[in-house]
Amino acid sequence: MSDDRYERGLKNFKAVTGDVGEKFIQNLNEISPDFSRYLIEYPFGDIYNRPGLDVKTRELVTLSALAALGYAEPELKAHTKVALNTGVTREVIIEVFIQISVYAGFPAAINALLAAKEVFKELDKKK
Amino acid sequence: MSDDRYERGLKNFKAVTGDVGEKFIQNLNEISPDFSRYLIEYPFGDIYNRPGLDVKTRELVTLSALAALGYAEPELKAHTKVALNTGVTREVIIEVFIQISVYAGFPAAINALLAAKEVFKELDKKK
Amino acid sequence: MSDDRYERGLKNFKAVTGDVGEKFIQNLNEISPDFSRYLIEYPFGDIYNRPGLDVKTRELVTLSALAALGYAEPELKAHTKVALNTGVTREVIIEVFIQISVYAGFPAAINALLAAKEVFKELDKKK
Amino acid sequence: MSDDRYERGLKNFKAVTGDVGEKFIQNLNEISPDFSRYLIEYPFGDIYNRPGLDVKTRELVTLSALAALGYAEPELKAHTKVALNTGVTREVIIEVFIQISVYAGFPAAINALLAAKEVFKELDKKK
Amino acid sequence: MSDDRYERGLKNFKAVTGDVGEKFIQNLNEISPDFSRYLIEYPFGDIYNRPGLDVKTRELVTLSALAALGYAEPELKAHTKVALNTGVTREVIIEVFIQISVYAGFPAAINALLAAKEVFKELDKKK
Amino acid sequence: MSDDRYERGLKNFKAVTGDVGEKFIQNLNEISPDFSRYLIEYPFGDIYNRPGLDVKTRELVTLSALAALGYAEPELKAHTKVALNTGVTREVIIEVFIQISVYAGFPAAINALLAAKEVFKELDKKK
Repeated sequence: MSDDRYERGLKNFKAVTGDVGEKFIQNLNEISPDFSRYLIEYPFGDIYNRPGLDVKTRELVTLSALAALGYAEPELKAHTKVALNTGVTREVIIEVFIQISVYAGFPAAINALLAAKEVFKELDKKK
Repeated sequence: MSDDRYERGLKNFKAVTGDVGEKFIQNLNEISPDFSRYLIEYPFGDIYNRPGLDVKTRELVTLSALAALGYAEPELKAHTKVALNTGVTREVIIEVFIQISVYAGFPAAINALLAAKEVFKELDKKK
Repeated sequence: MSDDRYERGLKNFKAVTGDVGEKFIQNLNEISPDFSRYLIEYPFGDIYNRPGLDVKTRELVTLSALAALGYAEPELKAHTKVALNTGVTREVIIEVFIQISVYAGFPAAINALLAAKEVFKELDKKK
Repeated sequence: MSDDRYERGLKNFKAVTGDVGEKFIQNLNEISPDFSRYLIEYPFGDIYNRPGLDVKTRELVTLSALAALGYAEPELKAHTKVALNTGVTREVIIEVFIQISVYAGFPAAINALLAAKEVFKELDKKK
Repeated sequence: MSDDRYERGLKNFKAVTGDVGEKFIQNLNEISPDFSRYLIEYPFGDIYNRPGLDVKTRELVTLSALAALGYAEPELKAHTKVALNTGVTREVIIEVFIQISVYAGFPAAINALLAAKEVFKELDKKK
Repeated sequence: MSDDRYERGLKNFKAVTGDVGEKFIQNLNEISPDFSRYLIEYPFGDIYNRPGLDVKTRELVTLSALAALGYAEPELKAHTKVALNTGVTREVIIEVFIQISVYAGFPAAINALLAAKEVFKELDKKK
């Protein structure tokens, strides 16, 4: 059932994104509630809790893809937070972005590292 | 010492690439021995065995970046073999590429999955 | 219901891809039946027949995105056939790729035009 | 005649961009009047009013290419306005960006949708 | 005059591409004579012999852009030949592609170096 | 010796980046001193003063790659300054970005030209 996918997706989404995720979905709802639903259903309802990869590794795979694309700074920051929420350490996130320098070049790695730095700083301030 | 980096890199490189890697380096040597040395030194000497990530996870991160770039089919096939050599299962490789559909789109995911399929077929024939 | 999405997607997929599509899905099934199902469900079940855009315009949008990505030659050829099947003319497909030269550069446009040329030739031979 | 191309291009450019376009050209003129002329001549003088595609569809093709590139946010916002000026509705623009999620991934689609949202908001304020 | 741009472009194009260029234009003419004309007029008629950069440096800039894009193998091979025809040495071409490893990653650099290798081999055979 | 590479890299880096470079490295050090060291060692220690290309041409190659990637605005601005420091003129930098319109499209060229404009303005103010 489509409703199952949505419910499952929303549960997964909320579990790892918290308040930030809720605001993001509201923001997206104002431009396209349909797209917002697809985002919950496909990435978070269908893919996110498939058994093949644990959630931490999924986030590393995601961070790697986003850093390689180069243009996905908002998503890179959001998934840096999500990765931390799933228990990935800051050190491991940094390690992924260092490795990106080999496959997508130093500018992509630098941009990802500086995006992560901003997220870490923001989280430190909140404490 | 630079020689240490090269030796360490070559050891890492050989450990995971086997015969395929040796042919590749010979091929690259014919166009630029300097570049071939940099490839051994930086990705495999400096980055590959840093403590922050185990080798299996490094390969998943690499496969994700290569699939997201979209154009890196030869490297995608090479690292699919490397990932298998480090003990990553076929199922996990497929799982990474399924997830790529979310972040880089279905064409990038399809191309990665079909590249992996060719590698798996080739390996099955050799048995 | 998920089954509805799959059935609707498969119907849409078959209507525009014919034999080529069937072989493609079989090919994809051999590496990942799950991904093959997602491909039918999300792009073809959820998105393809949304009311906002007619199917011809959807194909032009798709051809434009694929040409801009630059690396998606197999998908570009497949969607060139799909576009023709939905009634888009060869002239209009060429026109889209000419326009791509402005936004993604001449190499992306050239590659798309030469891919289309191969498809047109192949179709002419079959007649 | 080159002058014809420029005149024709400028007329096309002005017709769809209004004040925003004029400021943009002034901005570009300060760094390179030659490039500014090429921009008017090639995309707007040569390509824009070729008979093969109506202006509305051209804008959808452009929006699709820009969204797929991922990095072209300023151009995406500018062409969102242009598309509206040619008579494309907000709903159709949103529909194009939803479809981008399939071909270039969810981050590219999200960025395009949020860029469109900002444009729509800005236009609503002006009313 | 448009005819001037075309004549000037064709002269520039022929001067550096030789037989290979002629075949390429014929190939392109079969799918779109209009696009083929734009290719001669804009890149080769307008840009190619602007005074700001000598032709050798222009080719290095072009090779760098094509290598960074990652997907432009046919154009990379064609411009490797063009660069050689303008007097750029093989060593300098290799040097450009080595540098690409820093800015676009090792896969983009490897693909460009192996494309150049094929071109050099092909040219050696002809001798 | 690794220390030699670092010292040589740092000397090269400082020679062309001045104060801007120092701040950048401090910024990077706060997120990953290791990565910061790799950046000095590989691009600036290994590649930067290889004999095959003079420093000015290297910067043009770099600017071309960065502009073609599309997403590397911070690096584009930094290397615009570096290029000026090595003696490249503003006119030549503009010329490189005009040429990018052919290979990576007008949006990539526009973004690079407007980034250069900001750098030029900033430098003019400092005088």
